[in-house]
This record gives sequence, structure tokens and C-alpha cells, in this order.
Amino acid sequence: MTYYRTIHFSDTDAAGVVYFATLLSICHEAYENSLKTTGIDLKTFFTSSDMAIPIVHAEIDFYQPLFCGDTLQINLIGTKLNETDFEIIYNIFHESFLNKSVAQAKTKHVSINPQIRKRSPFSPLIIQWLEQISANVNQV
Amino acid sequence: MTYYRTIHFSDTDAAGVVYFATLLSICHEAYENSLKTTGIDLKTFFTSSDMAIPIVHAEIDFYQPLFCGDTLQINLIGTKLNETDFEIIYNIFHESFLNKSVAQAKTKHVSINPQIRKRSPFSPLIIQWLEQISANVNQV
Amino acid sequence: MTYYRTIHFSDTDAAGVVYFATLLSICHEAYENSLKTTGIDLKTFFTSSDMAIPIVHAEIDFYQPLFCGDTLQINLIGTKLNETDFEIIYNIFHESFLNKSVAQAKTKHVSINPQIRKRSPFSPLIIQWLEQISANVNQV
Amino acid sequence: MTYYRTIHFSDTDAAGVVYFATLLSICHEAYENSLKTTGIDLKTFFTSSDMAIPIVHAEIDFYQPLFCGDTLQINLIGTKLNETDFEIIYNIFHESFLNKSVAQAKTKHVSINPQIRKRSPFSPLIIQWLEQISANVNQV
Repeated sequence: MTYYRTIHFSDTDAAGVVYFATLLSICHEAYENSLKTTGIDLKTFFTSSDMAIPIVHAEIDFYQPLFCGDTLQINLIGTKLNETDFEIIYNIFHESFLNKSVAQAKTKHVSINPQIRKRSPFSPLIIQWLEQISANVNQV
Repeated sequence: MTYYRTIHFSDTDAAGVVYFATLLSICHEAYENSLKTTGIDLKTFFTSSDMAIPIVHAEIDFYQPLFCGDTLQINLIGTKLNETDFEIIYNIFHESFLNKSVAQAKTKHVSINPQIRKRSPFSPLIIQWLEQISANVNQV
Repeated sequence: MTYYRTIHFSDTDAAGVVYFATLLSICHEAYENSLKTTGIDLKTFFTSSDMAIPIVHAEIDFYQPLFCGDTLQINLIGTKLNETDFEIIYNIFHESFLNKSVAQAKTKHVSINPQIRKRSPFSPLIIQWLEQISANVNQV
Repeated sequence: MTYYRTIHFSDTDAAGVVYFATLLSICHEAYENSLKTTGIDLKTFFTSSDMAIPIVHAEIDFYQPLFCGDTLQINLIGTKLNETDFEIIYNIFHESFLNKSVAQAKTKHVSINPQIRKRSPFSPLIIQWLEQISANVNQV
């Protein structure tokens, strides 16, 4: 699934480029966009007292600096690791140059019951969304 | 000129709604979008050593809380105050309810020569952009 | 009540100075610090389902640019307007030059019952905190 | 080297905890603090046209949620990898419970000449700072 995003002035820092942690935040927007596109209500998803899917690991590699006004294309691929864990890979491109990514990120998420903070299997809605953003579906 | 923006998870705070200062940041995105739409290169605009237009005043009124996943419509009207100053009014609506704004903001900007930090008249490009975002043009 | 804060790299933008909306966010930190100093638990304060004090208005004037590494001194004065409303003035100085403020901000807050979103009188704890941060106490 | 930081309301999200990417930003504050403590001017460091040390990789593991008002202790250890590369490990603790970290992060940095974007050896100032934040010095 693909997400487009123009770099805002607030995303930049005094070195004149996108602040490093902000690019992970922009990847999270791509994740939210994929949830919303599949019909998941974001407000309910992120504030439910029955189910939470916190990020337990995040990482990002930066290959090129990004500037205010640049438009990014983020290609997102999700992988179900088991009944409670998934990870998402984000390939980040300049919209005008799709041959080589400018950055690549990964987030790992674990489904829990937030009241007891123990692992809890994905809901059917999440399984359906994971199928939508997996590599095979994207390749069709 | 109109800007649409979905509320991201990163825009929210532990009270479950958009963090107050973030909504001003979202208004600034609407300002950037209007510059870009008029053909102004954002990277050059915000980092030029010949011309800068810092914000000297900002204010915002909040009428309704905003949640993750909400889509906003921001209507922006600019007014040239004199040869060096302009202000922008931002009327902020839920996309699904345009009868009553959820917030209203204002920013005041002053054109300066950044090397000496003295007022400096608008460039022709800025005057043209100001005409595009003034109320009269929008009403046509 | 006084709050000290060094400007972080993440606070800056590609113009090399503090991003305008971020300075309001830093003022909010001064507000939080005053609450914590008076013994108010911040987690409970901001997430209670019985009481909320959302910001209904914010404004800020900028007199000087601020840079990464600068240390600010923020003097905060609160004023109780009536049984449900207060406002806070933030005078913002460079730590090394206290003769002239670099910015001044104001936030207006309204105490509500968040379940029905109606005005609700301040708790005794809030009234005590307001006394602590009012001008008279500071002058003693 | 150690950095203390209270979690602000703006650091949190609608799930009631610190937003994942924000904790990397807080680690960067610890890095800035170590630079400043060693006598490096942050404004010059981050905006020099002769030398830049961009982050090329960042990663973080989250073990416990963090809440508004929590105070963190971040222990930072730097390692010089070669003449142009260093990495920093951040061990993040609740100030009130130092037996077990709540998160751990890593950033990798490369010294470049920003005008040509090629690797460039560390300045003596950076080498001195790296010695100050390396594990051996901390253990003395």
C-alpha cells in the first residue's frame, strides 16, 4: 500500500533537513493510512481499552537528506509473524525518483490486552488488514 | 484557498485529542500548501538568506476537540496589511460538518532582510501569492 | 513561578530557529512544571475522566529568534478569571539577558466535566495551585 | 554520561503514553546535552557548513510504557567505530526504578563535509567528546 506525503516546515530542523525521528513519525502516518483505507476507525483503534498493538521495536536507515516541500512516496509491506506479532517495512522514495529509496524503516508491533498488558491474538479485522498490506497482495 | 488534513496519531496527546499547539502547526501546513500551489519553492522560501517572513504573532481559539482520524478542512484567507506585513486567518472545520468551525487561528508575518533583521518590502512573488489567497479572489 | 529550558535541535526548523508553534509547547511545559511543583500528579491531571481543563485560547508574540542551545527562562503568572476559567501569561527570556523578553504568550483554560463537556468549578487543588502562581504570591 | 528528563504532555499520544518516535527525540536531547557539557556550541555544531554528522541509522526497543510526569534517566555511551563513524547507545530508565531499563536505543552517525556530502574525519573536538562519553571513562 502506498502513501504520499509532502514534507512540512515543522518536519525540518536547523540543519535544513527532515529531523531524523520525524521520518519514523511519517512512516506511522503511512501505517494509519493503511488502517483507515481498510475501514478501521482510527480513534477507536488507538484508544480501545480491550485491544492495543504497541510498537515494541522501530528502526530506520537514512540514505539521503530530505527537504521542506519534497514529496515522498512510502511503500508499506506488512508481515504477520505469529498470532500476536507483525512487522511493517517502509520503503521511502522521493516521488520524482523511484529508482532508489531515500530511507527504509521497520516497526514491530505486538497485540496485547491493555488491561493486563499480556499478549492477545489479533482480531479478525487486524488479520484482514494484514492480508491487505502483505507483499503477495501488493504484487497482484 | 482550502487545505484538507487527516489528524494523525502523533498529533494527539494523552487527553485523547489534538494537542493545542499542533493545530497551529497544521494551520502552517495550510499556509505552506498555499505557497506551493502558487508555484513558490518551499525549500528556497524558508531558507533564503535574502528574504525571510517570520511569524511575529499567532493566536488560536478552540471550539471543539479533534480526534485521531478526523479530517479537517482549513479555509485560509490572507490580508496584506502594508508593504512588509500580512496576516492569515484560518477557519478550521470538520470535513463532515461545514456549518460551524471547530477552531479559528490567525498568524501575522513580517517580511525582513534576515542578514540585518530589518523590515524589507514583499517580493513580486509574495504580492502575487497574497492576491491569490485574499478574500476577494476566493469569493469569485 | 519560573521554568528553565534549553532549546533542543528538534525544536528548530530549516530557518535555523525555534519553530513558532513549538514555543507555545514549551510554555505548556512551564505550566506542567508549575502543576507538578504544587504536588499535582500530571498523569492523573491530564487523563482524568472526572475533570478536564482544556485550552480554549492561546496566543504568542515573538520579538527575537531563538537558537538551538539557547537557555530560556520562562516566568509564569496565573490569573483566576472566575469559578471555571483561568489564564496564564508566560514571559520568555534568554537566561543571559533578562532585561527584555524574547517572546510573550498567553493561554486561557476552562474547567469542564469531560463526560458532558460542560463548565465545572475548579477543584480545591486547582484553586490552591492558582494561588501559588498568581502575581501576588510571586511578588512576596 | 547521564541525562534526566520529565515526560511532557506534548510527548504523549491518545493511547496515553509517550509516542514511540518521541522517545528517540528525547535520546537526541541526551546526545545534545553531552555535547554541550563538553563545551561544544550546539548552534554552531548543528548548522556548520564545514562539518555535519548526520544520523544514518536509529533503532529503539520499548519494554514499558511511559506516562506524562514520569522522570527518565538516560545513560549514554558512545563508541568511535572508525575515523568518520560513531554510535551511541542509550539506556533509558525510570528515575525511580534503575534495576531494569524501560527502553534502549541506538543511533549511528557519520561525519561528512556537507558541501560535497562525503565522509570527513572527526575534528579534535569531536574526538575529545567521544572519549568523554565512551564506556571506559564512565566506569572510572
